[in-house]
Amino acid sequence: VSGEKAVLLISCLDQRGIIARVSNHLFRNGCNIITSDQHTDFEDGHFFWRIFLDSQSLSLAQLRAELDKSMPELLPGLGLKWQLHDASQRDRLVLMVSKLPHCMMDLLSRHHENELDADIVGVVSNHPDLAPLVHPFKVPFTVVSITKDTKAKAEAHLLAHLTELRADTLVLARYMQILSGDFLAKWGKPVVNIHHSFLPAFAGARPYKQAHDRGVKLIGATAHYVTEELDAGPIIAQATTAVTHRDTVADLARKGKDLEVMVLAHAVRAHLRKQVLVHHNRTIVFE
Amino acid sequence: VSGEKAVLLISCLDQRGIIARVSNHLFRNGCNIITSDQHTDFEDGHFFWRIFLDSQSLSLAQLRAELDKSMPELLPGLGLKWQLHDASQRDRLVLMVSKLPHCMMDLLSRHHENELDADIVGVVSNHPDLAPLVHPFKVPFTVVSITKDTKAKAEAHLLAHLTELRADTLVLARYMQILSGDFLAKWGKPVVNIHHSFLPAFAGARPYKQAHDRGVKLIGATAHYVTEELDAGPIIAQATTAVTHRDTVADLARKGKDLEVMVLAHAVRAHLRKQVLVHHNRTIVFE
Amino acid sequence: VSGEKAVLLISCLDQRGIIARVSNHLFRNGCNIITSDQHTDFEDGHFFWRIFLDSQSLSLAQLRAELDKSMPELLPGLGLKWQLHDASQRDRLVLMVSKLPHCMMDLLSRHHENELDADIVGVVSNHPDLAPLVHPFKVPFTVVSITKDTKAKAEAHLLAHLTELRADTLVLARYMQILSGDFLAKWGKPVVNIHHSFLPAFAGARPYKQAHDRGVKLIGATAHYVTEELDAGPIIAQATTAVTHRDTVADLARKGKDLEVMVLAHAVRAHLRKQVLVHHNRTIVFE
Amino acid sequence: VSGEKAVLLISCLDQRGIIARVSNHLFRNGCNIITSDQHTDFEDGHFFWRIFLDSQSLSLAQLRAELDKSMPELLPGLGLKWQLHDASQRDRLVLMVSKLPHCMMDLLSRHHENELDADIVGVVSNHPDLAPLVHPFKVPFTVVSITKDTKAKAEAHLLAHLTELRADTLVLARYMQILSGDFLAKWGKPVVNIHHSFLPAFAGARPYKQAHDRGVKLIGATAHYVTEELDAGPIIAQATTAVTHRDTVADLARKGKDLEVMVLAHAVRAHLRKQVLVHHNRTIVFE
Repeated sequence: VSGEKAVLLISCLDQRGIIARVSNHLFRNGCNIITSDQHTDFEDGHFFWRIFLDSQSLSLAQLRAELDKSMPELLPGLGLKWQLHDASQRDRLVLMVSKLPHCMMDLLSRHHENELDADIVGVVSNHPDLAPLVHPFKVPFTVVSITKDTKAKAEAHLLAHLTELRADTLVLARYMQILSGDFLAKWGKPVVNIHHSFLPAFAGARPYKQAHDRGVKLIGATAHYVTEELDAGPIIAQATTAVTHRDTVADLARKGKDLEVMVLAHAVRAHLRKQVLVHHNRTIVFE
Repeated sequence: VSGEKAVLLISCLDQRGIIARVSNHLFRNGCNIITSDQHTDFEDGHFFWRIFLDSQSLSLAQLRAELDKSMPELLPGLGLKWQLHDASQRDRLVLMVSKLPHCMMDLLSRHHENELDADIVGVVSNHPDLAPLVHPFKVPFTVVSITKDTKAKAEAHLLAHLTELRADTLVLARYMQILSGDFLAKWGKPVVNIHHSFLPAFAGARPYKQAHDRGVKLIGATAHYVTEELDAGPIIAQATTAVTHRDTVADLARKGKDLEVMVLAHAVRAHLRKQVLVHHNRTIVFE
Repeated sequence: VSGEKAVLLISCLDQRGIIARVSNHLFRNGCNIITSDQHTDFEDGHFFWRIFLDSQSLSLAQLRAELDKSMPELLPGLGLKWQLHDASQRDRLVLMVSKLPHCMMDLLSRHHENELDADIVGVVSNHPDLAPLVHPFKVPFTVVSITKDTKAKAEAHLLAHLTELRADTLVLARYMQILSGDFLAKWGKPVVNIHHSFLPAFAGARPYKQAHDRGVKLIGATAHYVTEELDAGPIIAQATTAVTHRDTVADLARKGKDLEVMVLAHAVRAHLRKQVLVHHNRTIVFE
Repeated sequence: VSGEKAVLLISCLDQRGIIARVSNHLFRNGCNIITSDQHTDFEDGHFFWRIFLDSQSLSLAQLRAELDKSMPELLPGLGLKWQLHDASQRDRLVLMVSKLPHCMMDLLSRHHENELDADIVGVVSNHPDLAPLVHPFKVPFTVVSITKDTKAKAEAHLLAHLTELRADTLVLARYMQILSGDFLAKWGKPVVNIHHSFLPAFAGARPYKQAHDRGVKLIGATAHYVTEELDAGPIIAQATTAVTHRDTVADLARKGKDLEVMVLAHAVRAHLRKQVLVHHNRTIVFE
């Protein structure tokens, strides 16, 4: 028999026997481990585990109920956190954009080719410009204008809209506004951003101008989870590419676009597959 | 308590419950799994597992005896192969070279900086040229001349020398001779070679000349296990670097040297850490 | 004054004084050299030069007339070939596709963001599937069906259509048909193709399957000019990315898509900027 | 006839006709331009030119005398700076090291294989440890101890030693001391340093620790000219490599070593070939 597929994420203090206890327990409940990745942070003795499993004869609801009961007994006193994600249930993604289409177009195209394990349920922008490009993908496009004076109201509006869309994850695909700490707290779910530099270098505004002024020989892009402190959240993915003295600020921006597209897609994909765990402002990415 | 460290490699047909059974068994014998990597080839249903463990209260000899007895019972009927490598026992490596020193110098330097989990117990060359460079590393340098007519005799001599050195692995670090199938069969242990192209392109002689003639925009290097068929053994590591129309064949050779050094070091390191399993002329590399 | 911008391409046998004679001549005619790139192939003594110039007081028509007269006198007996490209005149590009949209979407998006120095004047496919995706870009989409039996007729139809569109360059953006030598001869203008392997490895059909079977640790993509011999034309751009034993053939195809997109965009951009010269089935790419 | 080879570097304000005037002048003096690279910084209108030439019938002394006379007349009022480097005259390089051998070993090995256009005339260290490794390369090894209290005296000693060695360029190959502004001013010649991060990120001490704490997904290395401000001089070359959550600080240091070696070798090579010009704390690197 082949049952339901799920991802089980476990995070706790490290101890001898965790793998044996949990894998044995899953086996007794009829589950089959398809892939398994674990990591121990030896600096602070934390243990992280991602299991992709087939529940076989059990339904996922039954498995969840079983784990709710048994996990605290299996791994007591270790500060255990665990999550069971139904692999057949696709995340509901909302893209936030401004005027630059490249990251948005790439994610919509991947979605259209069924490459993402998610449904893009909306695109929200503070400008109407990109609406026509979204049209053939049959994804609703909404304008939520935002100015310095209207920020609180606009963010309330945005929050209501996201709730309506039943969104699970926000992706800031070159969205040019900063979400307030208040918004982030109320939203309470993951926000993935793409920053156009190899953070922590060139945080803040105009990173390509900063890179040009410093005369670096490579530029980068960084996808990270958004936290209240700007450009300082846990990094999910980064990449760099070579540049030369010939490249003007405009050339850096053009070359950087390709990095932004690839790095954001990489991070979104890992996030959707539940391959990313956050620990102390760093990420564990099981790929 | 902290016991002895070891790498346990398991390869068998895939089946539900393997992870549970083995990890449970190790736990009951007091072992602690430090890291664990597994892979299933879904095309032919083969399962591969690398466990880095601490034997805790058991000695490795006791653990080996225990596994000898229990493993066939734990995983019956699956064509099981397993190996237990004592992590404290360093492989004995022999480098084979001709006249080009770059790969040899790199491996000797890494060895000197204690970066390799191995002892380089000898350098064998068909030319005397590199002897002075080996001298400060205090590794014996031996010349085994080889010509078309003397090949059989030279290989017999080489084999005797390797036996004397109690070598575990041969590394062909730009060795310009082809080892015969007869030699490989008698030697019976791993031979790692570096080929100066991104195989399977430009197999055979003068790959940089071939690359230049074809006008490729990148050149590569490939580290692989040596099999009787030339340049066709299982690939362990590869890398490429960009080249342009400005690069002559000599420039390709110069740029390629850096690739050869890095790719060979990468492959040797993975091999020594018992991270490489061979399956159907392909490798699984657990890194 | 600022006049008209143009690219002057020169190819001839190498000789002392070419740079002096031509740059002096351009200066006397009031032209300003903005950038200049040259290359000498020392193997066969050929010289290649790309000059990006501002014609200042002259019109390009006047400059062209002047060069028509003077160039044969300036560089006699050297097998001279030269071209003057008006930088303000955008190439007319036609994309040819089948069912895979990724390369097409990327080029249409770049076109839409005004990143390409060209007008995409048509998309031609042997299948209707991609029509809706092309719609928002306001580029005509045409289906030219092709089967084994109708190939000659279909190619005649295609040729007529391209003539109607006044196309300058064809880009095969994962077009799954092979254009006949007869068609190529009649068309007589550049055709850029993307092949999904690091040629010359894995030429022909199903390169990702071939790559998987050989167990390579990196996959690649190659953009090249199409010649009558399949996958053997002059290479413009290549790139590779790392893969592991975990990657199935489907994973290779997914990872490879990103390479194909980037490598094809790179090659098309260089081609459109008149940065590519062909010599002996190799390219000189002035970037 | 084939004469002497030289590199002519020109830097001045941009103006129409510079290329024509200089190339024509060189031609009239019988010189043959072998390769030519130029760059205009359009932000501040500066022009940079590197010419690799064959002086043919003239000796370089004659050519130098000729240019001394004619260059100010050819390019008047443009703030002209020019240099003529005899390509046959090899720079005299001194390596400065502490206890880490990898960059030093790499440069000595390249020197030994005749890959560098320079003579390494000395290795200076503040520790005696690396002396045995230098021995087979027949390069003098000198210890110049340095402590907080003896810095001024040690630097005076160092300066005297470098003068004795007639050194042209210093290469800090993981030298763990900071050279004072006073020393740099007195020395007055190029100093190339390798920093183990992708500057400007993680400037200062313990960059691998900083990188690990921030949780970056790539680490880098930067070769730059040393200026009085620490880690802020003009960047010559940079590279990065991927890291994961598995990498400890020690792993980053090990992976980073390979980057440091490659980036420093790249920068030293470009410097020695007179391919690097400095402008406004940025470099133009003609490769």
